[in-house]
Amino acid sequence: MPDGQESVAGLDPLLAGLTVAVLGGTGPQGRGLARRFAAGGVPVVIGSRNPERAGAVAAELRTSLGNGGNVSLRGADNADAAAGADVVVVTVPWDGHRELLEGLAEVLVGKVVVDCVNPLGFDKQGAYALQVEEGSAAQQAAALLPDSTVVGAFHNVSAVLLDDPDVDKVDTDVLVLGDVREATDLVQALADTIPGVRGIFGGRLRNAHQVEAFTANLISINRRHKAHSGLRVTDV
Amino acid sequence: MPDGQESVAGLDPLLAGLTVAVLGGTGPQGRGLARRFAAGGVPVVIGSRNPERAGAVAAELRTSLGNGGNVSLRGADNADAAAGADVVVVTVPWDGHRELLEGLAEVLVGKVVVDCVNPLGFDKQGAYALQVEEGSAAQQAAALLPDSTVVGAFHNVSAVLLDDPDVDKVDTDVLVLGDVREATDLVQALADTIPGVRGIFGGRLRNAHQVEAFTANLISINRRHKAHSGLRVTDV
Repeated sequence: MPDGQESVAGLDPLLAGLTVAVLGGTGPQGRGLARRFAAGGVPVVIGSRNPERAGAVAAELRTSLGNGGNVSLRGADNADAAAGADVVVVTVPWDGHRELLEGLAEVLVGKVVVDCVNPLGFDKQGAYALQVEEGSAAQQAAALLPDSTVVGAFHNVSAVLLDDPDVDKVDTDVLVLGDVREATDLVQALADTIPGVRGIFGGRLRNAHQVEAFTANLISINRRHKAHSGLRVTDV
Repeated sequence: MPDGQESVAGLDPLLAGLTVAVLGGTGPQGRGLARRFAAGGVPVVIGSRNPERAGAVAAELRTSLGNGGNVSLRGADNADAAAGADVVVVTVPWDGHRELLEGLAEVLVGKVVVDCVNPLGFDKQGAYALQVEEGSAAQQAAALLPDSTVVGAFHNVSAVLLDDPDVDKVDTDVLVLGDVREATDLVQALADTIPGVRGIFGGRLRNAHQVEAFTANLISINRRHKAHSGLRVTDV
């Protein structure tokens, strides 16, 4: 895995020594992110309600990534995964978001929590944004986790492209939203571990809703063009 | 104006014979769009509450564009501008949006109305999205104008770049939102008259809110990077 080795050699100092948990990591988005972070030299723990399933996905990804010396990837239940990580990425379906975070609030104290969840509904006309009482999934997480630092990111990245070992580069920027610069810088560095991806600060948490909801627009674009669309911010 | 002549020669057949009104066309966004549409060979009427002001801006733009034979650009009050146009672009400030459209509902019957308005608030922390009862400015327009075809577009394009005669190309996609394919195709063609810009279907009107609100994120990005940011959709 020359890619992996290169990435480790070039690992951003902000990420040195950090372990990342991906909760809901057996779903498409979580699995894709876990694959890319691990390939980039970041130690990853896949979390799932079912630890056996998490372990199986971790094993599949290790095999797919070549089991190289730089790949550190294991499975656990969500609580154990969160407890063993410094940065906790949340990729569960929206309808399990509140319950999961409520249950993990204590274990997440002091950690950076990266919320990737898009509250969307689907009907015959496609996807649409759901109303969220707190404003957005990221703001709901912040309300539920007052002693964690919540960042929103990875909302608009195609799970299909992330989890495809034949895709060398994912052609998209990742908008990183949050109110604590140290945490958004860290998550930008995490995004940058994915080949092709650029992490870019996208504003405060109060502006997370539209980034989450924008996924509905990308789904419309994907339908029209049979594509896996992403976003680039120009002039930066 | 070789640019203008080239554009006229290549004017999309969908736009042939159509006149575009830009209401609120003396503001930065409207003025920039009027400049670019006119330069692209589209006859433009700038609308304003104050017809003298509209006429003065039209004259300024004609001078700036070189008064070439292909530039058709005049000013009028908003109602006259709308009455004389096939496609009516709305670029007024959000706080005048409802009142303007209520007053023009009759004159807009049967026309394509392109809503570019971003309902945003501003405070010391920057820009943020305002709640809109109807869901978005575009949906408010659709509710107020049941006998017009409302399309949302041009939300995220930098007014500064549009109105700068030294900017040859504006590096952004324009997301075009609407429920009537004929109208969204027309507005995509209108967006394509701006050098560098690509009009792309961005979903139904119910997904307009996040595109309007996304302008707050671009403002955050502009602050951080001292840029005039835009968006490109990848893989399409």
